[in-house]
Amino acid sequence: MSSMGNKVKIEIFGESHSAEIGMTMTGFPAGKRIDEDELYRFMLRRAPGRNATSTPRKEADVPEFICGIVDGITTGAPITAIIRNTNQHSKDYEKLRNTPRPSHADFAAAVKYSGANDIRGGGAFSGRMTAPICIGGGIAKQFLSTELGIKIGAHALAIANIYDDAFDMTNPVDICVAEDKDFPTISDDAGKKMQEAILKAKADGDSVGGIIECAITGVPVGYGGPLFDGIESKIAAAMFGIPAVKGVEFGSGFECAKMRGSEHNDAFLYEGEKVVTKTNNSGGIQGGITNGMPIIFRVAIKPTPSIAKPQSTVNLETKENVTLEIGGRHDPCIVARAVPVIEAAAALCLLDLLEEK
Amino acid sequence: MSSMGNKVKIEIFGESHSAEIGMTMTGFPAGKRIDEDELYRFMLRRAPGRNATSTPRKEADVPEFICGIVDGITTGAPITAIIRNTNQHSKDYEKLRNTPRPSHADFAAAVKYSGANDIRGGGAFSGRMTAPICIGGGIAKQFLSTELGIKIGAHALAIANIYDDAFDMTNPVDICVAEDKDFPTISDDAGKKMQEAILKAKADGDSVGGIIECAITGVPVGYGGPLFDGIESKIAAAMFGIPAVKGVEFGSGFECAKMRGSEHNDAFLYEGEKVVTKTNNSGGIQGGITNGMPIIFRVAIKPTPSIAKPQSTVNLETKENVTLEIGGRHDPCIVARAVPVIEAAAALCLLDLLEEK
Amino acid sequence: MSSMGNKVKIEIFGESHSAEIGMTMTGFPAGKRIDEDELYRFMLRRAPGRNATSTPRKEADVPEFICGIVDGITTGAPITAIIRNTNQHSKDYEKLRNTPRPSHADFAAAVKYSGANDIRGGGAFSGRMTAPICIGGGIAKQFLSTELGIKIGAHALAIANIYDDAFDMTNPVDICVAEDKDFPTISDDAGKKMQEAILKAKADGDSVGGIIECAITGVPVGYGGPLFDGIESKIAAAMFGIPAVKGVEFGSGFECAKMRGSEHNDAFLYEGEKVVTKTNNSGGIQGGITNGMPIIFRVAIKPTPSIAKPQSTVNLETKENVTLEIGGRHDPCIVARAVPVIEAAAALCLLDLLEEK
Amino acid sequence: MSSMGNKVKIEIFGESHSAEIGMTMTGFPAGKRIDEDELYRFMLRRAPGRNATSTPRKEADVPEFICGIVDGITTGAPITAIIRNTNQHSKDYEKLRNTPRPSHADFAAAVKYSGANDIRGGGAFSGRMTAPICIGGGIAKQFLSTELGIKIGAHALAIANIYDDAFDMTNPVDICVAEDKDFPTISDDAGKKMQEAILKAKADGDSVGGIIECAITGVPVGYGGPLFDGIESKIAAAMFGIPAVKGVEFGSGFECAKMRGSEHNDAFLYEGEKVVTKTNNSGGIQGGITNGMPIIFRVAIKPTPSIAKPQSTVNLETKENVTLEIGGRHDPCIVARAVPVIEAAAALCLLDLLEEK
Repeated sequence: MSSMGNKVKIEIFGESHSAEIGMTMTGFPAGKRIDEDELYRFMLRRAPGRNATSTPRKEADVPEFICGIVDGITTGAPITAIIRNTNQHSKDYEKLRNTPRPSHADFAAAVKYSGANDIRGGGAFSGRMTAPICIGGGIAKQFLSTELGIKIGAHALAIANIYDDAFDMTNPVDICVAEDKDFPTISDDAGKKMQEAILKAKADGDSVGGIIECAITGVPVGYGGPLFDGIESKIAAAMFGIPAVKGVEFGSGFECAKMRGSEHNDAFLYEGEKVVTKTNNSGGIQGGITNGMPIIFRVAIKPTPSIAKPQSTVNLETKENVTLEIGGRHDPCIVARAVPVIEAAAALCLLDLLEEK
Repeated sequence: MSSMGNKVKIEIFGESHSAEIGMTMTGFPAGKRIDEDELYRFMLRRAPGRNATSTPRKEADVPEFICGIVDGITTGAPITAIIRNTNQHSKDYEKLRNTPRPSHADFAAAVKYSGANDIRGGGAFSGRMTAPICIGGGIAKQFLSTELGIKIGAHALAIANIYDDAFDMTNPVDICVAEDKDFPTISDDAGKKMQEAILKAKADGDSVGGIIECAITGVPVGYGGPLFDGIESKIAAAMFGIPAVKGVEFGSGFECAKMRGSEHNDAFLYEGEKVVTKTNNSGGIQGGITNGMPIIFRVAIKPTPSIAKPQSTVNLETKENVTLEIGGRHDPCIVARAVPVIEAAAALCLLDLLEEK
Repeated sequence: MSSMGNKVKIEIFGESHSAEIGMTMTGFPAGKRIDEDELYRFMLRRAPGRNATSTPRKEADVPEFICGIVDGITTGAPITAIIRNTNQHSKDYEKLRNTPRPSHADFAAAVKYSGANDIRGGGAFSGRMTAPICIGGGIAKQFLSTELGIKIGAHALAIANIYDDAFDMTNPVDICVAEDKDFPTISDDAGKKMQEAILKAKADGDSVGGIIECAITGVPVGYGGPLFDGIESKIAAAMFGIPAVKGVEFGSGFECAKMRGSEHNDAFLYEGEKVVTKTNNSGGIQGGITNGMPIIFRVAIKPTPSIAKPQSTVNLETKENVTLEIGGRHDPCIVARAVPVIEAAAALCLLDLLEEK
Repeated sequence: MSSMGNKVKIEIFGESHSAEIGMTMTGFPAGKRIDEDELYRFMLRRAPGRNATSTPRKEADVPEFICGIVDGITTGAPITAIIRNTNQHSKDYEKLRNTPRPSHADFAAAVKYSGANDIRGGGAFSGRMTAPICIGGGIAKQFLSTELGIKIGAHALAIANIYDDAFDMTNPVDICVAEDKDFPTISDDAGKKMQEAILKAKADGDSVGGIIECAITGVPVGYGGPLFDGIESKIAAAMFGIPAVKGVEFGSGFECAKMRGSEHNDAFLYEGEKVVTKTNNSGGIQGGITNGMPIIFRVAIKPTPSIAKPQSTVNLETKENVTLEIGGRHDPCIVARAVPVIEAAAALCLLDLLEEK
């Protein structure tokens, strides 16, 4: 089931070209005001066509709330919102039924659903399905910030091997700096170089991947639990639920493999009355439980599989190897658009975690 | 709750120094023979004291089945097995109550459980709790191999930045080669160098981390689902449930961030009647669904936080910064012992996935 | 969360007066044809205004499918359908905010949701919310009948202490006989008397309750499980999720309390090759598992709490005891309209159970 | 899976004749003292051989806690307790493999588990499995009473059609009166008559059934939720998880079918500052949510299926109809022993409900 969460749960529905797509969020507290303008600004960060590096497709991603909110206030009942699908070119996809696109779900899904799955626009596997995640996640992000002072911010740490500045892991003061920018980097210079690299790839009929870094500040000590109750399990499961994610790491991440315990251990010390750690290789989580330091994690995003270049694939009908050229309009890089999606999924995890306790 | 799985579920119970630790597995098919000798050999791979690089503690990790199996055959009822705890030195731990060990769960857990948690040996956060995972996982691994021809194998890909040979991602023929070795590497030479590095760190009163690579072969096409139903979400959640894991990546993993779509995409081709991919950057999973290629993933393991070297921490009672020296007997590197744990957790995920369908 | 099911899951959303109400069903098999005409006929059985004994409110309960079905065939993605709300008279309800209606959720919900809940039409507690249950349940009922030969039928066994004929518990041949009738009884004479009693109550500004009997035939032996996995637990939880249900019993039900084991035990015997039972006091379930006999259960429905007669209640603002007269249009008896809802909930339980195995 | 609960979860394991049976409870708060003597006294109420009306089998139902409790205080880790099985006469059961006992799980389970299930003593379907429910439920009951002032009490309302006094549904002051009695009735005279009826049935080689009434007082307003989140769904699912339960009703229960709305509705009134209801036909629950009145429900218990009288059944091997005489030692009535089990299951539901909020 395309759902996540225990106490606060979100369920995603729809397919790339269905009449509507949407989400139902259950367990959200009653009596809370939702700022729909702020939510819409948040969703715009994911919307396509924002700048030359993303697909020219226009999607008016305006969520319509059909229940759970009266006069801007949550009622405690499930909150369901939909987005009307428009401007699809379904004819672009018909020929793909027998010639699966490399590194897309086409082939695996055709087998799983015995060919009954909706392939138009990637159906239920489309990146388009991250829009509903942003509805629920945007609401969760508002609540965490307003009611609990928990901030969540992400940025494009790397694209095409060009690196943005990294967050200060022990004291990331500016985690939301990328929010208002057209391109979500801390360093505008790095952002400029990244966009050049993306346009270069686009000109070559190709695409590029990258890494998103996300920080969560203001989380109290003591949330989570041992083994499979750990926060890393919860957040990682959410992140790998986002299309194109190939890796997730917390704190030191894969670098820890090269370190010694004496370097890697985060020494405790008192900062006034508060217990903090000198370093934050733990990424704010120890034994699956928050330790009061910022939660820091990174997510690897693969290059968009839809590229203009001719590619080798099979024809499932004729059972021959063939060459495929994909039409339609595609993103040469989805990292920038994925930044708010990562924030949204993180917000849903945190809210669920806090409401569970 | 320390449990994982939907259709086939495992629940872990116990604490490092409780009378017993154990697990209950529900949903396992009835009428299946369990080879207890093979299971015990599997668990020995995790047991300490196997060679100079692991802790000299002796743990007779013999699982006792108390229900669910009659005359070696599963009855369909929950399978519960326990391991009796012996040979603990609880006195080693008392002083830790007020001086949390850096990068351990001590501090976070003390806050979460208001100081009521059992700190002896790390309590519910102890690496010791991976033994019950190996009971359920060992049973699952037997079943997958015998009944379904699905093989699961892992090895120490890197320790202290020394690298073992990697699996051939499109055709890993020897994924179980490390099983019978005292040190779980493909290349004995790499294994020898790793052990030297571990002993060097031990001599320095320090520890080292590493990376484990795991492959799963023989998985049919079409298991898993879109978004949060994806296999990566399931496997990653299980992996991050294992103490000391800091990162998880599938297929190309974080390398994908540097690649272009044209390099990263896995071209489909016919190998006789079978559809395969030329490369396997997808790690056997596309759109969260198996595509018939080997599932490949890597797990980053941090250096053991328990080291002999003096470390800075706080005294929660006196509210001062203090220096801590940890007594007891500890692993300078847990990567080798974690290899079967990774296999066990992977086996539980796969069995659950297949039984769910 | 307003959801039920594990493998096939339904989630209900909406409030009596929200723009739309609806449901999302996940886990339904791909490639199955849905007969929307049949579904609509099924939903009409629940619709109000069918005859003089139900509320004159007109609700055009036409489900609109917004995803999960393409050209009448399920795609394997979540199936979401909505019903547009029309013809509400919200003004009827405003005065109720401070004067909770006896035996309604008004008071309990006001406390739970701190007064933020939508009280118009009963909000999320409205009998109106059973319409989405009928969408998912109607689809499940079609599938069970067409693909598996499992039939589900219910009737009004009793209303105002007037009894319909009961099903033959060992061989109920005509369980769907009430489907096509305006009033869902086996005996038209009993139905006529029931309607007279309902109209009499209505004339008195009062309401009446009753009992619904439901039978499920064609269920194979061996579904369900011990203790909390039992089918009774699953079906009972679904039934008590339907507003106004006060009791659920299987087979002999509460009558068993008066019987001796020698009368109550269902003797096994061979009927040709098939093992059957001479009686069916077990209601087709033994030890929580189906035994191949018809599943029989009964559900007690309370008299509609909304009555025209003046009633005593409190004013939560002035903290006084007051007299309340409820306006609006209400059902003097909801038993007849609840019959298809019981069938729908039973169908969802059975489908989930079969898909789980 | 034989588990119940979301936030506080209990999982039952074991079979009637396995080495041990037991339970794991997760999510129970840390730092709480468990009174093991009180728990043992509670479990004795379920133990057999207490008086002439129950089986002479002696079971030393002493729970051994193997983890989750240190020095009598919960640690926050899963609490696992086991009961060693002794004094079984397994030989009594072998002949039953091919001749299923009427109204037992033998036949259904044999099909479900392809004959691999442990039939000794009923295996996982044995009433013996209610002992672990009493461990977790006894702990929950202590906690609810000590920490939250929530009391739970049950009694044998009817056995063999002989009725005990019923609880006052609006103000049941003495709900725990039956706790300390050898036979759990409010009226000793009724209890005496019931025991005579049981012994009479026993003398006839027969058995009798009955009804248990349970009350829960001190529950705050506002717990539960609409539709499938309702408390009735949760409690009913738990009750039907107890072997031999055939019916569950809340408040007025099946009587509501004969009533009119004007009789059935519970008028609200102020009792000082507190809102109460004049009657309690709602059983303390409206719209699935607690309304502050006592929760009242009744459970129908069938006559013990194991009787000495010869019975008709089938031989699954020879495929003939045969006559069966059951040996072994059996309860002519399990109602009295089931009373604490009902309390235990109710306590687990309530604790889960309160911890969830």
